[in-house]
Amino acid sequence: MATESFPPPSGTRDFLAAEFEARERAFATVRDVFARFGFQPLQTPVFERLEVLTGKYGDEGDKLVFKILRRGEHEATGEADLALRYDHTVPLARVVAAYGSRLPTPYKRYALAPVWRADRPGKGRFREFVQCDLDVVGSASPLADAEVVSALYAALDALGVPGFRFMVNSRKVLMGLLEVYGVPADAGGGVLITLDKLDKLRPEAVIRELVEGRGQFEATASSLVADLTAPDSITRIRKELTNSSIGQEGLAEIDRLLDLLSATVPRERIAFVPSLVRGLDYYTGVIYEVTAPGMPGSIASGGRYDGLIGRMSGGAETPACGGSLGIERILPLLTSAGEKPASALDVAVTVLGDDHADEAFRMAAAVRRAGLRTGVYMGSSSKLARQLKWAAAEGARFCLIYGDRERDAGEVIVRDMTTGEQTTHPVDQVAGSFAE
Amino acid sequence: MATESFPPPSGTRDFLAAEFEARERAFATVRDVFARFGFQPLQTPVFERLEVLTGKYGDEGDKLVFKILRRGEHEATGEADLALRYDHTVPLARVVAAYGSRLPTPYKRYALAPVWRADRPGKGRFREFVQCDLDVVGSASPLADAEVVSALYAALDALGVPGFRFMVNSRKVLMGLLEVYGVPADAGGGVLITLDKLDKLRPEAVIRELVEGRGQFEATASSLVADLTAPDSITRIRKELTNSSIGQEGLAEIDRLLDLLSATVPRERIAFVPSLVRGLDYYTGVIYEVTAPGMPGSIASGGRYDGLIGRMSGGAETPACGGSLGIERILPLLTSAGEKPASALDVAVTVLGDDHADEAFRMAAAVRRAGLRTGVYMGSSSKLARQLKWAAAEGARFCLIYGDRERDAGEVIVRDMTTGEQTTHPVDQVAGSFAE
Repeated sequence: MATESFPPPSGTRDFLAAEFEARERAFATVRDVFARFGFQPLQTPVFERLEVLTGKYGDEGDKLVFKILRRGEHEATGEADLALRYDHTVPLARVVAAYGSRLPTPYKRYALAPVWRADRPGKGRFREFVQCDLDVVGSASPLADAEVVSALYAALDALGVPGFRFMVNSRKVLMGLLEVYGVPADAGGGVLITLDKLDKLRPEAVIRELVEGRGQFEATASSLVADLTAPDSITRIRKELTNSSIGQEGLAEIDRLLDLLSATVPRERIAFVPSLVRGLDYYTGVIYEVTAPGMPGSIASGGRYDGLIGRMSGGAETPACGGSLGIERILPLLTSAGEKPASALDVAVTVLGDDHADEAFRMAAAVRRAGLRTGVYMGSSSKLARQLKWAAAEGARFCLIYGDRERDAGEVIVRDMTTGEQTTHPVDQVAGSFAE
Repeated sequence: MATESFPPPSGTRDFLAAEFEARERAFATVRDVFARFGFQPLQTPVFERLEVLTGKYGDEGDKLVFKILRRGEHEATGEADLALRYDHTVPLARVVAAYGSRLPTPYKRYALAPVWRADRPGKGRFREFVQCDLDVVGSASPLADAEVVSALYAALDALGVPGFRFMVNSRKVLMGLLEVYGVPADAGGGVLITLDKLDKLRPEAVIRELVEGRGQFEATASSLVADLTAPDSITRIRKELTNSSIGQEGLAEIDRLLDLLSATVPRERIAFVPSLVRGLDYYTGVIYEVTAPGMPGSIASGGRYDGLIGRMSGGAETPACGGSLGIERILPLLTSAGEKPASALDVAVTVLGDDHADEAFRMAAAVRRAGLRTGVYMGSSSKLARQLKWAAAEGARFCLIYGDRERDAGEVIVRDMTTGEQTTHPVDQVAGSFAE
């Protein structure tokens, strides 16, 4: 291994103790919330057979899949037969197809695990990153959507994300608008992609793209954009959709969802935002995104996607909805300042000469039995000053000092590493000295 | 996705809720113990740059590495630039080299995460499996070995593995024996490989292999095997090694280790077993293996390997020792029979008609706030019998029943799903009914 080749692969990270534990604490919080909502964990292998992934993410996505070379005599072919998972949705579809009726109905599952994408690494963009999905497969009920949104809300709340807010819309509202404005079916997808830019571009720029890029009439484009961006946007949209049955369905869906959520999500945290589009074209019903101050883009999102699971698994059409926490984007928003890393020692035990090692080891065992995180000095110095420095570097709250004098007296000194205060205890009662 | 392609890739497993949670419980137990011993978690990426892994595992091992194809324009070359990690030792060596003095000294770390090997899958042999390693890098002290063994013991004890037992030896004892018996240095490795079979083959078969396969004299082979297998083997070996300085060093190491461990490992759980060899040739000092009734081979192992880290990282020679829990072999030994999977619901909430959905949802929210795992019925039936069946399938302890009659009375029925007993509570006090 050359000296210049020590960092982890491009776009990946090593997590040493403090960062690992901060992440795990957040993950445990999320898992607890999802479990409380009756979602079950699912863990799939890190790789899938290549044919399971191929063609699921479009041409651009397929290029970002990490493919695994065939092995043994087949390695020389340069062909791949496996690939690292790109998301948790395709593995979910495979599991639904594989286990069928052996899964609960509906199947409420969460997955909190890394995925891999060969994106160009950049600030906050990784090639190995954790995705956190929860989905309800097999229920068309608005209760399923409400449960997913409630669980996302509860998780963000439990994590302590400040000031986050849900925006809700329905694909059917957008379809209704396209219908009302006479946008031809085959142009609808492109128009939505352009409308999705309303949160980033000025309205005039979006109108220009609708006209020049999507072939819409100037009047249609202006009016559509005005409806979606006006301060009274919701009233306008409701009026526009009076005669669209799909539009009415969408509005009813949103009203029903907000109604159900009144028990779980505070009013000021959620709103109907008719301009919300969500990029992915597989959504069929309600859609939502969560924003938070200090983080551009969304920190969570989801919606109903009734066709996808059946299409991916080659089975019957299966109603489904789900959401995703952008956990890698959420972690930087959490304040863990001042928190002592959990990996710091409670008690550091000095070894002031080889002949004291046995007693030091025995004391460490006793203190550990009392549940304290304990380390024994293993370096080559027998100097107290050197060992106290080690204890401090380990973040220890207490240090046990046991040398010739203490042995002769059958005692041990307990040093409070913060105050420097020292108390003396009989050797066989040292564990008890931490009990208070 | 073809219907025949639903299973996970060969040698890998999907973990549904019950199995996932049983595994996680065991992993959490192990992490807690290792933390109590002051070991820190380290998480490295699932893949490393190919050159970091290549040449580390010998020709046979290299063939089992899963290699990742280069991407984009380089994909067509059929070349790999990354590979899934094959163990936790090479990533540890890379991290030691990369972070150097920013790591604590000594660096006590554990890793509990999957590794991947393209072995032929078989009963109990997987291509994706969890390895659980703990190591102390940077200490030559026998306390380091004692800490690793104590932590392994405490983990096995906390997991509840029945009847396990440590066998301890030292590579130096074996080197001393080879010296005493006049085995030439270049034949030593082969002789040890053969002696390692004493736990599987009859002594005569081992003697024959020593003579025919390793070119040893019949008298040497017989006497060596007799020393290692006699009931008074330890006494014999001590006598044989009287004049071997390396042998004496080895015996002293073992005595020191057993002495230190008298505080943490019960005497009947650990023994000096001079015939223990351990296959891997990188060990330099004490070595050990743990066996348990009902599981052929070992369930944990480890030892001191002072040369390896420096060799792998191209740095200075670094003293190190470590052990590994064969966690995939241990899991089947644990009795979790009768344990209710943690993913089962505490409370199932019926929805007896759409007009009761809001109230059902509100009750679910209240019960969840009380910390109970709660699910709301999301199917299409409004029949109580059907919904009770769902509640039973979810493993729910209680079921909330709320229909027209209950609404009119402002009440809800709490059904104990085990006894069938039903009690009635005011709707707004339902969460409190689970408090006792």
